[in-house]
Amino acid sequence: MENIIPEALRKVVEEVSSLPGYGEKSAQRLAVNILNMPRGEAIQLIKTFMEMLEKIHPCRECGLYTEEELCPVCSDETRDRSTICVVEESFDAFAIERTGKFRGLYHVLGGRLSPLEEITAEDLNIESLVERVKKNPTKEVILATNPTVEGEATASYIYNLLKNMDITISRIAYGLPFGAVLENADDFTLAKALEHKTPI
Amino acid sequence: MENIIPEALRKVVEEVSSLPGYGEKSAQRLAVNILNMPRGEAIQLIKTFMEMLEKIHPCRECGLYTEEELCPVCSDETRDRSTICVVEESFDAFAIERTGKFRGLYHVLGGRLSPLEEITAEDLNIESLVERVKKNPTKEVILATNPTVEGEATASYIYNLLKNMDITISRIAYGLPFGAVLENADDFTLAKALEHKTPI
Repeated sequence: MENIIPEALRKVVEEVSSLPGYGEKSAQRLAVNILNMPRGEAIQLIKTFMEMLEKIHPCRECGLYTEEELCPVCSDETRDRSTICVVEESFDAFAIERTGKFRGLYHVLGGRLSPLEEITAEDLNIESLVERVKKNPTKEVILATNPTVEGEATASYIYNLLKNMDITISRIAYGLPFGAVLENADDFTLAKALEHKTPI
Repeated sequence: MENIIPEALRKVVEEVSSLPGYGEKSAQRLAVNILNMPRGEAIQLIKTFMEMLEKIHPCRECGLYTEEELCPVCSDETRDRSTICVVEESFDAFAIERTGKFRGLYHVLGGRLSPLEEITAEDLNIESLVERVKKNPTKEVILATNPTVEGEATASYIYNLLKNMDITISRIAYGLPFGAVLENADDFTLAKALEHKTPI
């Protein structure tokens, strides 16, 4: 009796379910939330998505999502062009940028190596990173992929590609997050926090 | 430094964040997932949403999302028109329909009473339910809102509106879900499961 789901709704749920991180339930919720909106607002929302697709593309140099050919970071002459911070997605760079602590350039991979999702090195902007490092006077590459199994694997894959070049390669630090309760930290994080202890 | 987020992307995140059940992070994830798709596929996805908004609307009688004026349930002459099953959303009805155990009609509220989200009785299809029951030869109304605090409140609000009419009003049963582990069930569910024990 499942065929009472109207075709146009079923298609949306099917397509959204195939996005990473979405399942059938979350796709249904999104579809129903949009159908429940006043129709004018819903159409406006969809138009905002379309506008995003028309205007936003990866920066020619670093892959950061931007409306210009060069992102605001790459086109900022005051940035330190000898340091490249490698992140999985644009929003990781936006988050680092909010700290105001980083003055170098970014390189956006567009994901992480994931055998399960069949994402290989060819699917990521890894070759263009190696080219950038070769062509530009780079002193340091900071690998700021996520502290997950897949982020670690991606960082170590890139490390192996770059290790014979005359540059410093660093990994973003593991440690206790601010506000954490020590006894609740997982063993790996706690071990890393001890290993990387810093003098006061 | 947050202003490196491009405007067209920020707008999508802002609008999606305002949907119920979405926060900033899940909105970012949706936006990036769509930007990461091959552009042609992404545009196709957005067009599928637009098509959904053009084709799908609530059934004139029961509020179920449908492409026709009357949904397949309301227009099916073999259905038992004296029983109305009241659900929060269309997907609840689709789920009940999949069981094949219900042969009556539906009534879709389009949500649940929620003081926190400022959803009042006027925002839901409650008045139209009372009208339907008055106008049609109804014998039973089954309140199948979710077994949550808000779903309960909605059911009891509707119960109070209908209780003086000459109909049976029932509530979908509480009990242990199939496959559950008894010792892990919450007290309320376990108490209800005992209270509503059925002879074997």
